[in-house]
Amino acid sequence: MTVQRIDLNSDLGESLGTWELGNDEAMLDIVTSANVACGFHAGDSLTLMRTCAQAAERGVVVGAQVGYRDLAGFGRRFIDMDPDELTADVVYQIGALEAMCRVAGVRVEYVKPHGALYNAIVQHEEQASAVVAAVVAIDPSLHVMGLPGSAFLRLAEEAGLSTVAEAFADRAYTPEGHLVSRREPGAVLHDPETVAARMVRLATEGRITAIDGTEIEVRADSICTHGDSPGAVEMARALRTALTGAGIEIAAFAR
Amino acid sequence: MTVQRIDLNSDLGESLGTWELGNDEAMLDIVTSANVACGFHAGDSLTLMRTCAQAAERGVVVGAQVGYRDLAGFGRRFIDMDPDELTADVVYQIGALEAMCRVAGVRVEYVKPHGALYNAIVQHEEQASAVVAAVVAIDPSLHVMGLPGSAFLRLAEEAGLSTVAEAFADRAYTPEGHLVSRREPGAVLHDPETVAARMVRLATEGRITAIDGTEIEVRADSICTHGDSPGAVEMARALRTALTGAGIEIAAFAR
Amino acid sequence: MTVQRIDLNSDLGESLGTWELGNDEAMLDIVTSANVACGFHAGDSLTLMRTCAQAAERGVVVGAQVGYRDLAGFGRRFIDMDPDELTADVVYQIGALEAMCRVAGVRVEYVKPHGALYNAIVQHEEQASAVVAAVVAIDPSLHVMGLPGSAFLRLAEEAGLSTVAEAFADRAYTPEGHLVSRREPGAVLHDPETVAARMVRLATEGRITAIDGTEIEVRADSICTHGDSPGAVEMARALRTALTGAGIEIAAFAR
Amino acid sequence: MTVQRIDLNSDLGESLGTWELGNDEAMLDIVTSANVACGFHAGDSLTLMRTCAQAAERGVVVGAQVGYRDLAGFGRRFIDMDPDELTADVVYQIGALEAMCRVAGVRVEYVKPHGALYNAIVQHEEQASAVVAAVVAIDPSLHVMGLPGSAFLRLAEEAGLSTVAEAFADRAYTPEGHLVSRREPGAVLHDPETVAARMVRLATEGRITAIDGTEIEVRADSICTHGDSPGAVEMARALRTALTGAGIEIAAFAR
Repeated sequence: MTVQRIDLNSDLGESLGTWELGNDEAMLDIVTSANVACGFHAGDSLTLMRTCAQAAERGVVVGAQVGYRDLAGFGRRFIDMDPDELTADVVYQIGALEAMCRVAGVRVEYVKPHGALYNAIVQHEEQASAVVAAVVAIDPSLHVMGLPGSAFLRLAEEAGLSTVAEAFADRAYTPEGHLVSRREPGAVLHDPETVAARMVRLATEGRITAIDGTEIEVRADSICTHGDSPGAVEMARALRTALTGAGIEIAAFAR
Repeated sequence: MTVQRIDLNSDLGESLGTWELGNDEAMLDIVTSANVACGFHAGDSLTLMRTCAQAAERGVVVGAQVGYRDLAGFGRRFIDMDPDELTADVVYQIGALEAMCRVAGVRVEYVKPHGALYNAIVQHEEQASAVVAAVVAIDPSLHVMGLPGSAFLRLAEEAGLSTVAEAFADRAYTPEGHLVSRREPGAVLHDPETVAARMVRLATEGRITAIDGTEIEVRADSICTHGDSPGAVEMARALRTALTGAGIEIAAFAR
Repeated sequence: MTVQRIDLNSDLGESLGTWELGNDEAMLDIVTSANVACGFHAGDSLTLMRTCAQAAERGVVVGAQVGYRDLAGFGRRFIDMDPDELTADVVYQIGALEAMCRVAGVRVEYVKPHGALYNAIVQHEEQASAVVAAVVAIDPSLHVMGLPGSAFLRLAEEAGLSTVAEAFADRAYTPEGHLVSRREPGAVLHDPETVAARMVRLATEGRITAIDGTEIEVRADSICTHGDSPGAVEMARALRTALTGAGIEIAAFAR
Repeated sequence: MTVQRIDLNSDLGESLGTWELGNDEAMLDIVTSANVACGFHAGDSLTLMRTCAQAAERGVVVGAQVGYRDLAGFGRRFIDMDPDELTADVVYQIGALEAMCRVAGVRVEYVKPHGALYNAIVQHEEQASAVVAAVVAIDPSLHVMGLPGSAFLRLAEEAGLSTVAEAFADRAYTPEGHLVSRREPGAVLHDPETVAARMVRLATEGRITAIDGTEIEVRADSICTHGDSPGAVEMARALRTALTGAGIEIAAFAR
């Protein structure tokens, strides 16, 4: 499906006290949706409060980037939790971030799972269902962001939630439309021009070239960009410039 | 000031995963206000969710029992935090519990600091102010519960918050109306009948006998009871029976 | 293989600050080996120090009960850690407990993984290998305790470590010699006499009756007992009495 | 007292999973003693293991940089712990790092408290005594590093421990020989040449110019340098060059 408008999202609020990560202020000038950490995999309370305030100042939409409770692993290690524990942990995190948003005069508009949780619920039905249950329980008007074709988005749609499919700007795709594993060569793209051209085409034609050269259709309501290195910020900025130069409106899905 | 109506509160939701603490269901049949932990000094997410649901079922009002982030110390060790960090931590905790309440169909009605934070803000102006700032920022219609005469309640009133002064059922008072330190003999009362008689008099006459025998006036909108031992539950139940037997209505302040 | 001597072990040191778990002093009068938690899944530092001291006073051998870093889940949730992270976490925990032992005048004699880690390394080769690597790196004279037939004990033996096979007093066995899953009926035995009789036979004949009635051979150098309820302590005491009554010496494997 | 030999120390191993802090490898080429974090205020297990291995490769002596259990606050917030809890936490941390050292073929040679604990035990007798008790209990041959004139070093000496007095390369001193508070102007020195000249004079004459211009005597067995910014590494390197250029031997106190 051809779209003339797309959202740009990025992971933010991931500093922890003395440990700084990413360049939140630079990224907030580029993206339209901010996936703000909720304290379980990253983000001390003060960082979350400041990031929500900075997003609100710029009109950037805030989403709750919920994750496993695992600071040492940055939420990147699968944890085999019971579904009811996971539901409770997700509700807890959304509520904590909602409070930060309320102080900033805005609200949490969507939920995007992080790291190992994001990857797990592509296929793990029980955990996907647990995250969906948390969102439904706390506020069914929240959107959920995830991988198109995932169990998570499918179950969310079945539960009546509004879903946001995202594409990854700097990642290669398999012919089936999945992400190429980071362990394989060519999985991550490093050239800003290539990345920008791929995303312009995705936003205008709904198509992308897979790693084997085949053309595939990919649903993308939002494009995920990263800001945790100087080069990453540059790539995100170049991507935004290319998209607007191609006449595509950059706008939050949630507005 | 003579009152014919008083609130009973208790600390609840303080289990942590496999570690159970207190008898929440028994106490929820006795009290009218539940100070539910928020995960920083006690309470895993699932415990908080269940405790809020159980309180909601019984019409018991829920308050956010916020504390220092210190599981190993159960929030009983003073932490010399910067005020802005403390404000952010309190906002975070209130929001997390608010989400649990929303799932249960109720809302957080008040905030009661826990343990070392409770004690610190009797006199620590900066931390007291930081907690007040958190409550004002997130929702100025929230009540705050604390010790009458504390910096916390004074600053809360100055900020326009509704305050709830609490008395401690099983604690001795100094002639100045403070709590006798637990390190001194006679600080904790163990006889249920004595406790009940003192609290009936406090609720009806606004007076209590200090440890040296002098009669003092104490403001009490709520009475704090404990449920972390079988004897404690019995004492709370006896207290409730004595109060109602004396014609005093037991009702949540927040209704 | 018929043995006339067996070790009794139990999980101890699992309290966390205000939260008490189990009856350590009672169990230390029954068992000969204490699997002391190391702070990652349970056990604050002071609890560990006291438990090691109490074990040392009674001549009970101390083992490091290492686990995943997961207080809220009590180490009972599998975490998909990288092997090198797991090795480092296990080394860290053994060292911490070794310090507690040194203060008590004894030393860590063995390592027994806990909960989800214990279960994972029955089959998870990478994590089993990571735990073995940790033990080899820190002290190859340490024994390791685990399930007979597990990848963990096999890899430990291949690495030259001394292994201790344990049986579970109150668990049913499959005809293949595995534990019946707790989710199935009959998995946990509750009758102290039945438990005692099974373990006497195991210690003297090396045989046990599986859940389907077949007779199987099971290697058992140690029997695991529990102490986290009054009934559990009674069962452990009855087991010890039955074993000694049958002429079996109760002695730590590590002596 | 004039010395011709001095130790250089730096805080290392303070990364936490994804969050990197400092340039450990660069600093390990400059200093002779590494204060390695122990996981309570900073440092995941794998970081600690690697840092100890890197120190061992270079012959840099390892010390245990023990702190309060407070990742979010990086150990920079005073926690009013009971002395026995603090003793247990310090023993635990030393043991954990000792295990990392043993794997690297070396051992912990000294203990240096971190952050708020360092500052607290300049005057807080109970906590200072608790740290000393921990060191004595685990290994009285360990050195302790701290501020000359502190309660910590005084109590350590009374307990028979070997003490190492440290000076801070980039900090101004009061006429009494204390550090000027960071909140006051001029507290931190930024010019590498000034810093180097001051430390050369301190190492050769035992004297330093206080912030008001008076000359004071300061005991310094070791000089603390920092490596958490590119400029910091440069300053440390310039300091080392200046000291060796002045004929002063840079050598670990513990050898």
